[in-house]
Amino acid sequence: MTMLIVQKYGGTSVADAGCIMRVAERIVQSHRAGHKMVVVLSAQGDTTDILTAKAREIAPDPSKRELDMLLVTGEQQAVALMAMAIHKLGAPALSMNAVQVGIEATSLYGNARIRRIRPERITRALELNSIVIVAGFQGVNRYGDMTTLGRGASDTTAVALAAVLGADVCEIYSDVSGIFTADPRIVPVARKLPCISYDEMLELASMGAQVLHNRAVEMAKRHRVKLVLRSSSRFDDEGTEIREESTMEKLLFSGLAVDRDVARISVMGLVDRPGLAYHVFSLLAKEKISVDIILQTAGNGQTKDISFTVAHEHLDAALKVLETNREQIGFDMTTYDTQVAKLSVIGAGMTTNYGVASSMFEALYDCGVNIHLISSSEIKITVLIDENAADRAARAIHEKFTQLMQD
Amino acid sequence: MTMLIVQKYGGTSVADAGCIMRVAERIVQSHRAGHKMVVVLSAQGDTTDILTAKAREIAPDPSKRELDMLLVTGEQQAVALMAMAIHKLGAPALSMNAVQVGIEATSLYGNARIRRIRPERITRALELNSIVIVAGFQGVNRYGDMTTLGRGASDTTAVALAAVLGADVCEIYSDVSGIFTADPRIVPVARKLPCISYDEMLELASMGAQVLHNRAVEMAKRHRVKLVLRSSSRFDDEGTEIREESTMEKLLFSGLAVDRDVARISVMGLVDRPGLAYHVFSLLAKEKISVDIILQTAGNGQTKDISFTVAHEHLDAALKVLETNREQIGFDMTTYDTQVAKLSVIGAGMTTNYGVASSMFEALYDCGVNIHLISSSEIKITVLIDENAADRAARAIHEKFTQLMQD
Repeated sequence: MTMLIVQKYGGTSVADAGCIMRVAERIVQSHRAGHKMVVVLSAQGDTTDILTAKAREIAPDPSKRELDMLLVTGEQQAVALMAMAIHKLGAPALSMNAVQVGIEATSLYGNARIRRIRPERITRALELNSIVIVAGFQGVNRYGDMTTLGRGASDTTAVALAAVLGADVCEIYSDVSGIFTADPRIVPVARKLPCISYDEMLELASMGAQVLHNRAVEMAKRHRVKLVLRSSSRFDDEGTEIREESTMEKLLFSGLAVDRDVARISVMGLVDRPGLAYHVFSLLAKEKISVDIILQTAGNGQTKDISFTVAHEHLDAALKVLETNREQIGFDMTTYDTQVAKLSVIGAGMTTNYGVASSMFEALYDCGVNIHLISSSEIKITVLIDENAADRAARAIHEKFTQLMQD
Repeated sequence: MTMLIVQKYGGTSVADAGCIMRVAERIVQSHRAGHKMVVVLSAQGDTTDILTAKAREIAPDPSKRELDMLLVTGEQQAVALMAMAIHKLGAPALSMNAVQVGIEATSLYGNARIRRIRPERITRALELNSIVIVAGFQGVNRYGDMTTLGRGASDTTAVALAAVLGADVCEIYSDVSGIFTADPRIVPVARKLPCISYDEMLELASMGAQVLHNRAVEMAKRHRVKLVLRSSSRFDDEGTEIREESTMEKLLFSGLAVDRDVARISVMGLVDRPGLAYHVFSLLAKEKISVDIILQTAGNGQTKDISFTVAHEHLDAALKVLETNREQIGFDMTTYDTQVAKLSVIGAGMTTNYGVASSMFEALYDCGVNIHLISSSEIKITVLIDENAADRAARAIHEKFTQLMQD
């Protein structure tokens, strides 16, 4: 059966001429099997970092427009080289940058969103039996300027193209061969999932399992694009499919993620009045500080405490904003802790099933891990624990849930 | 007086962050003096060679379309970095690639010609007082694909922009600070010319004085663009101005050039009949072999000899074409000589003044140099001599003409 396949290969998959030839062979193989192929590439290896360093050598905080103008050349080079490699294997190929594809994006340099894709040129090339190689990570805004879609956004380019072209599948190749029930480096018995739902994937991704760009998953969910994560080193391995529902029956447990890039901040003795949380978090938002787990104590009637987590890089800025506005907000003191980790368990129907949360807490209790904060959603339970207990806790929870599922 | 100035800086002038800052200061200086500035850049240092090598690592003869797609990234990187450098100095700047400028070119990848430039976006940016930094060497064809304009064609981009924008002057900065009466490495007493005519410059350039891209000079002549060659290492040095007429009175002698990349071929004993030269040279043209000095002997009534020169790289092909078609053309034998050099003297009114040619021949005779071929045009006399006599001959002729001009 002829399919329209969109594939995306990351920077390490096209790092040098040898890698490019290997990927080219994979692409040509699918093309020879009769499939129509659209391939999205990132820049080679650490090209984007090298270009960013070149810019910072000239100006520590370069114009975002000019930085985008510079960075998009990385992907353009990769697609041109890939087209040459495919030609060498005797197959037709055409490289395209965002202007040529017609990837219209918003104007926000460095972090633009795709507004629309005009697929006419790709469609025409596919009709002529050509393989189309598209520069990921980039778009054109309404001024005709190049914009980039944010770090790792080549995934988003691939999914957007798959949606617009009505592709049968969008395959994302990376050095992660699929989604595991936990990080195999921490939990050796972790196993690869044959499939997972969009929502579970979103929770996993936001929890630090840096496998797939979150916006890509959101877009895939919205447009019902069938996503498959595959290994770029072992092409023939089965990957993990991301789709509407993970299985016919709801999986209790589909994954566990640990995020160490997290610091806990507590604001103590907040005067209890309406808009309390608003006051605190609007100030942080103004400074572009993202906060995660938020927990507000019930309080003693007069004052309350609010705790939340931020990424390490935002800790200093967050503390500064709070101190600067202590009078206005009205609180006694702040405390913080950087030696913490977030541990999340993801699975459909997590919190609608009593057993799940308590099993998690039981596992943590059994291995003597103290819980600082707890947060939960429909399909996720997250705890904040001491960083040095994270691996032990992950293994204990994984074992517990694997047992539960076998029961 | 406010002027519209187009400047072009070559690859060595923007090779690293330090060079870029230096050039940025020069540009901002002119901008602060009230001038409107459009700056054309080549790719940094040997970027184009590095990219070409990357392509050849994948395919020895890569698709020209894809090679252009790859190569144009070099200039795009340079203009983005330059805009950042200018911002750092507190001046407004906007980088543009060929798509953004609207440089429409023919489809011939690797060697396209500029068809039209739509200057609206540049004009708008200049009205907003911005410095505009344009990627040289590139154009867009009617399919929306990137094409390159041939090696060294950033000069052409600069002149074309100057013509379209009606610039007051087009300054070409390179490591050659102007046009000298001879190569100072060969003729130490050679002096820099304050000005030279377009035609003289064209003759000099085609004779191997690789200072300025020939198409750029031709275009400047056609559109009456005032060109100035200046030093990129000593910005304050006076350069050489290239304009309609070199001075009010015709200069007898404006330069001397030596070209060693030349081989002489003679076709002996050609049967004398109409179309003789046509037969020989149409066959060479079909093989894309450029011939230079052509000389046909008066002959003895039955047979004639034709001699001409080609670049070394074309010698084998030229001899092969001639041998293959010996029957059809009708000649006895071919001879050739690679140990020769072309020595040309350029100046307005060269051949309309008896004294000039004879002075040249006298100088050669005085230093014992034998002349193989002679060719002359309105403003040039060229002789083919032994290669090992070229330096000696150049010095002798330079001395002779300098004397003549002082008389």
